[in-house]
Amino acid sequence: MLYLESLYSKNANNMKKSVIRELLKLTQQPEIISFAGGLPDPDTFPVEDLHQAADLVFTKHARVALQYGTTEGDNELRAELVKFEERQGHKIGPDNLLITSASQQALDMIPKIFIDPGDYVIAERPTYVGAIQALQSYQGRMLGIPACCDNDGMDMDELEKRYTKAKADGASIKYIYVIPDFQNPSGICWSLQARKALVAFAYKYDLLIVEDAPYREIRFLGEHQPSIYQLDQEMENRGIVIGLKTFSKILAPGVRMGWIVARPEIIQKLVVAKQAVDLCTNVFSQKWLAEYLRTGKIYEVIKNTCNLYRDKRNFMCEMLEKHLPKRSDLFWTKPEGGLFLWIALPKFINTEEMIVKAVAEKVAYVVGSAFYFDEPEHNAMRINFSYSSKTQIEEGVRRLARVIKAEIVAHEAGRHSVAAPEGV
Amino acid sequence: MLYLESLYSKNANNMKKSVIRELLKLTQQPEIISFAGGLPDPDTFPVEDLHQAADLVFTKHARVALQYGTTEGDNELRAELVKFEERQGHKIGPDNLLITSASQQALDMIPKIFIDPGDYVIAERPTYVGAIQALQSYQGRMLGIPACCDNDGMDMDELEKRYTKAKADGASIKYIYVIPDFQNPSGICWSLQARKALVAFAYKYDLLIVEDAPYREIRFLGEHQPSIYQLDQEMENRGIVIGLKTFSKILAPGVRMGWIVARPEIIQKLVVAKQAVDLCTNVFSQKWLAEYLRTGKIYEVIKNTCNLYRDKRNFMCEMLEKHLPKRSDLFWTKPEGGLFLWIALPKFINTEEMIVKAVAEKVAYVVGSAFYFDEPEHNAMRINFSYSSKTQIEEGVRRLARVIKAEIVAHEAGRHSVAAPEGV
Repeated sequence: MLYLESLYSKNANNMKKSVIRELLKLTQQPEIISFAGGLPDPDTFPVEDLHQAADLVFTKHARVALQYGTTEGDNELRAELVKFEERQGHKIGPDNLLITSASQQALDMIPKIFIDPGDYVIAERPTYVGAIQALQSYQGRMLGIPACCDNDGMDMDELEKRYTKAKADGASIKYIYVIPDFQNPSGICWSLQARKALVAFAYKYDLLIVEDAPYREIRFLGEHQPSIYQLDQEMENRGIVIGLKTFSKILAPGVRMGWIVARPEIIQKLVVAKQAVDLCTNVFSQKWLAEYLRTGKIYEVIKNTCNLYRDKRNFMCEMLEKHLPKRSDLFWTKPEGGLFLWIALPKFINTEEMIVKAVAEKVAYVVGSAFYFDEPEHNAMRINFSYSSKTQIEEGVRRLARVIKAEIVAHEAGRHSVAAPEGV
Repeated sequence: MLYLESLYSKNANNMKKSVIRELLKLTQQPEIISFAGGLPDPDTFPVEDLHQAADLVFTKHARVALQYGTTEGDNELRAELVKFEERQGHKIGPDNLLITSASQQALDMIPKIFIDPGDYVIAERPTYVGAIQALQSYQGRMLGIPACCDNDGMDMDELEKRYTKAKADGASIKYIYVIPDFQNPSGICWSLQARKALVAFAYKYDLLIVEDAPYREIRFLGEHQPSIYQLDQEMENRGIVIGLKTFSKILAPGVRMGWIVARPEIIQKLVVAKQAVDLCTNVFSQKWLAEYLRTGKIYEVIKNTCNLYRDKRNFMCEMLEKHLPKRSDLFWTKPEGGLFLWIALPKFINTEEMIVKAVAEKVAYVVGSAFYFDEPEHNAMRINFSYSSKTQIEEGVRRLARVIKAEIVAHEAGRHSVAAPEGV
């Protein structure tokens, strides 16, 4: 009889289910308040305007929108994105753009073209779980550099030290992966100085930088910072940055639409890779978003989204302040944008063990350990503030605080929490 | 300075641009008649009904359609597909289904979960170029078994012989990839006997079969044959078949929507792989097609498409009969369905060299050599009959005949055609 395990590839046998996606299933239980997902607030979706834009596609060019398209992406959409990127301070042309099925596809295609088994990527510790999974599916490895909880980006001394050691050990290091704006999971934003230092480091060692910027436009506090892509253009314009962008957080994730910005040679290599991956991105959705972007209304949507999320973030910080125990070893980030914040708990609390109790209390988070390629921290969690209503945020934080306090009390009473079932 | 070639993965440095996609660019030249692409006739797109279905999504569940969805795929769409598959004679449930971004994504994910570098797939010779490219991107290899120009599927003696030899040489063989219905590129359809023999072979050697069936519903002549998926269910029901389906040829390729049918363990493994690939397929399009399928109108569309393509196929065969030289070493397949036929030319004609002359004469085809993993035949071409109008078919075949006749005349005069520039 056919034994599947003997047929699966090494990659497949190594693949783990996404903790986050599995948690999303848990959170479909009734009455649970989930801070686990990374869902935008559907109130921000401009349903009527998107409906009108879709109508235009049907009346103006349905036969093109329903047919195969080019792998690079629809010309009209790319023309609109050139304008969108210009407003961000990026001087690019259509040849610098590849349309993708949102950022996750880009996160899959980048290691596809750069990573051989055993190759390294430098990344923040913690970093986005989807980037870790995509890298793992090509048997790549991550050199994690601490970067959390302040706005100074990576620890540059540590980066220099670990890079030099890895190279001396014969490591093949391909690129640096960073999320400088309101990072997932930490919510932090890199300072201008930290960004410049990273570009200088990449120049010094001839490395590419992959700048993943899904939340960049969702800044609701603080000062605008130039992107790393822009800094490269302003410094020596070496074309070493690959920018990943998506409509998922600034418009609607259901359209699965993103784009890569890079120098034309890299775009062309990605185009060849994408031909074998899916031929082209959803043509109808490309035409649809091109029509929508032409209205210029996305900037209003982004502004309203920022206002809404600022309000929710402030409220969540207020509730955390009010309900969580006051201790020097319990703190959280205060992001100036994005969708997430990061809570560090006392070292004796293991959030993987605690999640079972949290779900029993009808509240969910993502365990911090999911965001480490190796040697995970076990005492942290990622919390989303964009999706829940204020009522839910208040009640959810209350429940979370109860669970955390119980852990502290149990610890102080010398008792230890029981281990959670494997795989949670 | 950064030298990209030293950073690219082995896969990326091996990737070749798709001959077909590059040809599609050539064919955008004015006045060219292209038999090269695999485009459906846009007259078959049910624009009005699709528009109404999209309107329903906006009015009924826009907030869900614009949000993230599950990796497995939308429940409503999967419920509709269970019914669609039932009409095909397949007994399945939603757990047997994974929604993909059309078939090409499935063709990428199958080797992702089964192929380690150097592993083999058994396939027809010739076979679909997109399947070859996807396999190559995982450094897989193909054991090609002759299957062309009659309806008897693979040469089973050859299969047994080559399989036994490869195993004796230590090859790791993972699955058999076939397109039994109106194959791309040959247009042939496997007989019932050939299908049963393949299932028996797979049973004997504990192999999976990947049945790629994008054209299955587009049968316009001859008798219905059970799918290999159905035959496995009827024979020993071992669950060894993975079926790949798409809306690209039966509805509209621009929506980039397909589905995989397989036993639940394999679907679950693919779900984990897809999480890292793109999180989920376009949610709006899934809801949209679910609404459209609910109308039941797709069966009428398929019927009309079959009628239209039968007419075009007959006309193209008539024109080939009328204009191509009559020789025993020049013949073509007469498909009972699908979008393509295959022309074999005299051995002394190299269609890669001839394509430059054909394009100069304003007619295009796909070179036959694109459809071989190794040891390509050079004297064949794939011809599409679904896209061009009858006027274009007549004029295009006339042009093609002129080019072919000139090759024959040149050969008989003892002259040889000049080599085409590399990469065409």
